[in-house]
Amino acid sequence: MSRTPPEVRDLIRDLPDSQIREVALDYIGKPGLIALWFGESDEETPDFIRDAAKAALDAGETFYAPNAGIGPLRAEIQAYMTRIYGRDFARDRFTVTASGMNAIMLAFQALVDPGDNVLVISPVWPNCAETVKILSGEVRRVLLDERDGRWSLDLDRLFDAADERTKAVFINSPGNPTGWMMPEDQRDAIMEWARRRGIWLIADDVYARLVYDRHHAPSFVEVADPDDRVIAINSFSKSWSMTGWRLGWITAPASIGGALAKLNEYNMAAPTTFVQHAGVAALRDGDPYVDGLAERLHRRRDLITQSLGRFSRVRYTPPDAAFYAFFAVEGMAEGSLAFCRRLRDEAGVGLAPGSAFGPGGEGYLRLCFASSEAALSEAMERLQPYLD
Amino acid sequence: MSRTPPEVRDLIRDLPDSQIREVALDYIGKPGLIALWFGESDEETPDFIRDAAKAALDAGETFYAPNAGIGPLRAEIQAYMTRIYGRDFARDRFTVTASGMNAIMLAFQALVDPGDNVLVISPVWPNCAETVKILSGEVRRVLLDERDGRWSLDLDRLFDAADERTKAVFINSPGNPTGWMMPEDQRDAIMEWARRRGIWLIADDVYARLVYDRHHAPSFVEVADPDDRVIAINSFSKSWSMTGWRLGWITAPASIGGALAKLNEYNMAAPTTFVQHAGVAALRDGDPYVDGLAERLHRRRDLITQSLGRFSRVRYTPPDAAFYAFFAVEGMAEGSLAFCRRLRDEAGVGLAPGSAFGPGGEGYLRLCFASSEAALSEAMERLQPYLD
Repeated sequence: MSRTPPEVRDLIRDLPDSQIREVALDYIGKPGLIALWFGESDEETPDFIRDAAKAALDAGETFYAPNAGIGPLRAEIQAYMTRIYGRDFARDRFTVTASGMNAIMLAFQALVDPGDNVLVISPVWPNCAETVKILSGEVRRVLLDERDGRWSLDLDRLFDAADERTKAVFINSPGNPTGWMMPEDQRDAIMEWARRRGIWLIADDVYARLVYDRHHAPSFVEVADPDDRVIAINSFSKSWSMTGWRLGWITAPASIGGALAKLNEYNMAAPTTFVQHAGVAALRDGDPYVDGLAERLHRRRDLITQSLGRFSRVRYTPPDAAFYAFFAVEGMAEGSLAFCRRLRDEAGVGLAPGSAFGPGGEGYLRLCFASSEAALSEAMERLQPYLD
Repeated sequence: MSRTPPEVRDLIRDLPDSQIREVALDYIGKPGLIALWFGESDEETPDFIRDAAKAALDAGETFYAPNAGIGPLRAEIQAYMTRIYGRDFARDRFTVTASGMNAIMLAFQALVDPGDNVLVISPVWPNCAETVKILSGEVRRVLLDERDGRWSLDLDRLFDAADERTKAVFINSPGNPTGWMMPEDQRDAIMEWARRRGIWLIADDVYARLVYDRHHAPSFVEVADPDDRVIAINSFSKSWSMTGWRLGWITAPASIGGALAKLNEYNMAAPTTFVQHAGVAALRDGDPYVDGLAERLHRRRDLITQSLGRFSRVRYTPPDAAFYAFFAVEGMAEGSLAFCRRLRDEAGVGLAPGSAFGPGGEGYLRLCFASSEAALSEAMERLQPYLD
């Protein structure tokens, strides 16, 4: 008897593979290649955070943790948020999650019934949209505009995209890959509109601290009432160089805290216990590290701008936040995916194709500048023949 | 303007809170209380596993990992499965997950469209069923029979519960809380039936090694063809005393490996990187630990059986596997939840109410015997006035 191989549901089968991984797979760690395709700093996690994890292991912190996260971490998150945003937050508004990605999954599990739709401001890193689809929801793209390499949001376009089945808006600001940073006046207008319509705002704030023209990016948490429909998502990955740790947190109305804790239980119980203890150290002692990282990234951004800003085929303005250059390349007839393969094979530089970031992304390339200045300088030299 | 607090979707709001946590919350760590309510050994993770995590941290294993898991861990899982089950498995059948719980969530995300149903053999730990509901699927219970404290499955009852929308059967054997262990002949009959019907088998094998009358429990992975619709779930939590680490794995047809890796990406990218390195050590060097733990649990089971088996109000037969005593209490008119509260407050012993385990669970109590013999002896003395 011949059998067809078993398959998952159609909707899951049809989820796109990451085009970043399509370019990068089999080339990770290749000698001589300068890999700037992933959204990850090349710095190992600082020692004081690793030491805290080791101390927690020694102390026997190897048992189940509470669903909402360990008490000391929720307390430290409360102190951090109060310090950064200059207002009080009740502790029961915080839920610890296993990464920003995991927080997004929990948020959509909490909100999206089959057939509900979510507005996603794009181009944007692809995972948020796929998460909605997994829950049998519908994704509606709201495209940012780009002019001279600066990205902006047309509020009317956002508001017009909503209907009776619109459950939430997903807003990643500062944005990956665009670097778009929602201005205060747009934040306030979106908050007001969402409040009136009863629509949730899912704010992906993971780049909130990697900002080059101010201390932190505008966030809904600064203006939302405690019971506004705002779920703000944060992560230890980017600002504390903890991508491999899988730790983040949600700020939400206290009224849904119980539901989020339940969802933690049904997804993975809680993040790794001793990792949570390391998170305490990161927030308590990490401000100098985060500020230093932002300074280093600022210099690196300026370094690549010296080249990217001059390449004749490139349309680019340095972003004010996050650690990506997302630039248009004129005459990239073969498409961004094929072009990235060619840059990888011929120039030895790994970039991410704009097509990986959904509608509005084709025609662009993403370069993560969270690498050493030496690597970035060399990469710019290698790219020059292809982009100039 | 007065506003009602924001709420999640009805389906999520209505998910039951864990009745175990309802009894235990606010009493965790209470001095003098003997806590036997959670499914967790009282042993810290062995040193050789903690040392491997620390070494990986020192080696800078703090970056993103591949979606399917790091290569060395998938290789070690392959070697382990081959060693335990005495047959070959291709490496691309394994996906690393952030716990057994997380593996179940991924499996149902892969398979359950809204309106699909899943047969769940019960009583069973509650989380598997709630996961189906989160995905807007339907749970159909198939009750085990209990006679003189032994649990058994009526195959006709299982087969009759399926219809055209039945996507999968969830089978936890050895079972939490019942200790039910699926016999080989039933395993083979279920495999044959599922194959004929095109129904998936989700096998929760996390207690496969904690067995007292043989080396390992019967598993579908022993008889399934590589492309049979079987998703077997394993965890480091129970056998290696790693509950707080959040690490597990899936064995599945290679044809759905890509989908499972994608789902990992969209749930949390991958489990914590240095935790995966610790998993390598656990599988490579952990057989003596697992065998020793099973021996200790065997002695503890026999210790509590001396008392439980004699208490006049208790109907109980020692289980052949897992680390729970799940026993009926005659005349528990107040219900198992209220009775557990009373045992907690009056006797200072923490047990889990049978009602926490869904239909078929009321009238029973669950006692986890993965605690020291001293604690168990003392607990039995304290329980005697209430159960005898």
